[in-house]
Amino acid sequence: MTPSSTLSLSGERFTAVYSLSGTAAEVEARASAICLEQTVEFPEALIPNQAIRTQIVGAIAEIEPSARFSSSDESPNSFEVSIRYPVETAGRELTQLLNVLFGNVALQPGVRLQRIELPPALLQHYQGPRFGISGLRQRLGITDRPLLCTALKPMGLSPAELADMAYRLALGGIDLIKDDHGLSDQIFCPFDERVSRCAEAVSRANQQTGRTSLYLPNITAPADELDARAERARERGAGGLLLCPGLTGLDSLRRLAADERLGLPILSHPALLGGLSLGPHIGIAHGLLFGTLTRLAGADATIFPSYGGRFAFTKAECQEIANAARAPMNGLAPIWPVPAGGMRLEQVPELVRFYGADSLLLIGGDLHASGDLSARCAAFRSLVEPGSQTDSSGNAWGDL
Amino acid sequence: MTPSSTLSLSGERFTAVYSLSGTAAEVEARASAICLEQTVEFPEALIPNQAIRTQIVGAIAEIEPSARFSSSDESPNSFEVSIRYPVETAGRELTQLLNVLFGNVALQPGVRLQRIELPPALLQHYQGPRFGISGLRQRLGITDRPLLCTALKPMGLSPAELADMAYRLALGGIDLIKDDHGLSDQIFCPFDERVSRCAEAVSRANQQTGRTSLYLPNITAPADELDARAERARERGAGGLLLCPGLTGLDSLRRLAADERLGLPILSHPALLGGLSLGPHIGIAHGLLFGTLTRLAGADATIFPSYGGRFAFTKAECQEIANAARAPMNGLAPIWPVPAGGMRLEQVPELVRFYGADSLLLIGGDLHASGDLSARCAAFRSLVEPGSQTDSSGNAWGDL
Repeated sequence: MTPSSTLSLSGERFTAVYSLSGTAAEVEARASAICLEQTVEFPEALIPNQAIRTQIVGAIAEIEPSARFSSSDESPNSFEVSIRYPVETAGRELTQLLNVLFGNVALQPGVRLQRIELPPALLQHYQGPRFGISGLRQRLGITDRPLLCTALKPMGLSPAELADMAYRLALGGIDLIKDDHGLSDQIFCPFDERVSRCAEAVSRANQQTGRTSLYLPNITAPADELDARAERARERGAGGLLLCPGLTGLDSLRRLAADERLGLPILSHPALLGGLSLGPHIGIAHGLLFGTLTRLAGADATIFPSYGGRFAFTKAECQEIANAARAPMNGLAPIWPVPAGGMRLEQVPELVRFYGADSLLLIGGDLHASGDLSARCAAFRSLVEPGSQTDSSGNAWGDL
Repeated sequence: MTPSSTLSLSGERFTAVYSLSGTAAEVEARASAICLEQTVEFPEALIPNQAIRTQIVGAIAEIEPSARFSSSDESPNSFEVSIRYPVETAGRELTQLLNVLFGNVALQPGVRLQRIELPPALLQHYQGPRFGISGLRQRLGITDRPLLCTALKPMGLSPAELADMAYRLALGGIDLIKDDHGLSDQIFCPFDERVSRCAEAVSRANQQTGRTSLYLPNITAPADELDARAERARERGAGGLLLCPGLTGLDSLRRLAADERLGLPILSHPALLGGLSLGPHIGIAHGLLFGTLTRLAGADATIFPSYGGRFAFTKAECQEIANAARAPMNGLAPIWPVPAGGMRLEQVPELVRFYGADSLLLIGGDLHASGDLSARCAAFRSLVEPGSQTDSSGNAWGDL
C-alpha cells in the first residue's frame, strides 16, 4: 500500500454549497473549518503531509454574498460557500456521501446545506429512480395529466375494512392508493393480511373499470425485515411500495430501488427525515433533501407537505422541491413531486397550476369529508382530466 | 378479522412529552392535533367509530407550563404536553415507534420532542445494549476509572500508517482506538486491509503491555453491505464497532446490537442524526436523541459534541445526555456518555469532574499536538488513573 505522502487521486471533485452568516472574515474562517471538519477532522497544522492537504481536504471554490444585511464589511451578511470535495472521499457509498456533505456540520448551528453538484465520476455509482415520471406514466397508461393519490386510513381499521376502502377508491379512479405511513405490522392490522386483501381489492376494481390503479403498501420496517416485507408485498400483488427513508435510513431506499427482482415504483414519505429541512440556519435545504437526495437514492416520487395545508412549507420551498425532483440531473430520471399534508379538493386547480401536469396529487382526509367517497373521487378525477375547468382555462398543467 | 368497531387493545400506553409554545388555548388545540397527526392522521369528526377514537388516537395526559413569559393567559407561554399513545400503535418495531413519537410532527416548527416513557409492554421488544457500562468494564478489566478513547486519523493515511498509529496509541494506554468516522471503504484506505492491519497492531501492542486496548473499525456502510462489514470486522479481530446510525438508520444499530453471533460493543457516532437535536423549538431533545433513543437501539456508548469544544452544545444539554445514558431505564443497561468534538488534554480534569468516572473521554487531534504521541498518551492516562491530581482533589469521578 502506497504511503499517504504519494497519494494520487483522480482530482475529480463534487461540490457542496452551504449558506453561512457572519462578516466576510468570519465566513471565510468558518468555510476553511468546514473543509477540514468534513474530511480529515484534524487541525490544519497537524496534517502530516502535503498530499493529504491538497488531495483529501475540501477546497473552497467560491464565497458569494447571498443577502446583504449591511453595507459594512465588518457587519454580518449571508454568504453561499461552495466547497469541493474529492470524489474518492465519498467512495461509492451514499452513507459516506451524506457523511462528507453534512455528517459533522449537521451538529453545528449556522450552517445549512443548500445544494450539491455531483460529477459523472461519482454519479456512476448510483442507479437512481427505476421508473421516475415516464416509467410510472407508462405503467399506468396515462400520458399527460397529473396523477391522483390517496392514503388508506385511519389507523385502527381492519385489513378487510381497508380493502373495502381501497376497492372503492380504485373504482373511483384514484391512480395510486397507498397505505397511510402509520400502518406497519400492528396486531390490529397485520402486514401480510392487509397487503393481500388490499392488492386483491384493487385488482378486482381494475378488472371492472379496465383502468390501472396501483396499491402501494407501506413496507417501512426494521432493518432485518425490510427485504422480506418488500418481497412479500410483491408476491401479494402490490403495484408499488411506500417507504419512509427517515425511519429506515436513506440508503435502504437506494437498496430497494436497485433491486431488479423487485421492480416496483417507490414512493418516499418524509416522516422524521423532514425534520432536517427545518431551518433557516441549520439543516438541509428543502429542494436538496426532498428532491435531489431522495431522487439520488432512487425514489420515483417524493411526498412533501405542500403550502396551503397543515404544515408550514412556503410556496418557494415547495417550488424548490418540485424543481429539484424534475430538473436535469446528469441522466438520472426526473421524479414526481407529491404535494400533500392536508390538501383539499377545492385546491386542486391551484395545485395543478402551481406544480404542473407532472405532479402527483395526494389527498387524504378530504376525500372522506362528505361521506360519499365515490362522488369525491369522481370530483377529484374530473379536476385533472382533459376538458376540466382548469384545463380549459389555458394555464393548467404548466410546468414550474 | 374483527371489525375496527370492536377493537380490543390492551390499554397499555407509552408517553411522549413535547414542548410547545403559545397561549393555553393554542397549546391545547395543538396538542389535540398532535394526538391525531401521529396516529390516525385523519380529521377527528371523520373517525369512523368510537373504538378508534378511544383506543388508537393519542390522549393528552397533562399540559404543564414550563416557562412563563407572561402573566396573562392570552399571551404565549411555553408548555410541556404529555401525550399517551397505545403501545400497539408502535407494534414491536423501532422504526414505527419513532414514527408515532415524531414522524410527521418532525416537519412542523414549534414542537420539540423532549422525553419519552416506555412501559415494560413496549420495552419487552428491545434488548438494548449488550455490554453497557459494566460489560465494557468487564471486557477491559477496568473497574473504576473513566475510559480513554481516540480516533485514527486523518483521512488520507494508508492502512499501514493507521496501523502504526494504532500500535503506538495502544502502547500508550488508550483503551478504545476507533476509526475516524470518515473512514469507510475508500480506495486510498480499503476497509478490509485497514481492519486487518489495525486489529493486528493493537493485538501486538496488547501482548507487549499485558493490557487490553480495543480497536473499533467504522462499519457504517450501505444497507446491503453493513452485515458483511460487521462480520468481516469481527473475523479480523476488531474489539468493537463504530456506527453512525444517522447515516444507516437507527434500526441498523438495533439490529447489530441484537446479533448474538457478532457480540461486540458498539460505539454510536452522531453524524447527521445529531442535526435533529438543534432546537430550540424543533427537533428532538439532546438527552432523548443521544441518550434514551441511542441506548434503546442498543449502543454501548454514545458520542456527542461536548461543551468546551468545536461545537455549541451547552453544559445543560451535555448533562441531559449523560443522565439519559446512565439513568435507570426499566432494566436496560446504562451506557457510556462519550464527550467529544475538540476536547483537549488540559480539559480532562474538568471533564472527569463533570461527567464522572463512568464516562469515556474521546480526544482526537490534541493527542497529536506536540508531535510526541507517546508522551501525550501517557499524560492523558495519568489524568484519569487513581492517584492523579484530579483524584486526589477529592471531587474527581463524581457522578452527575
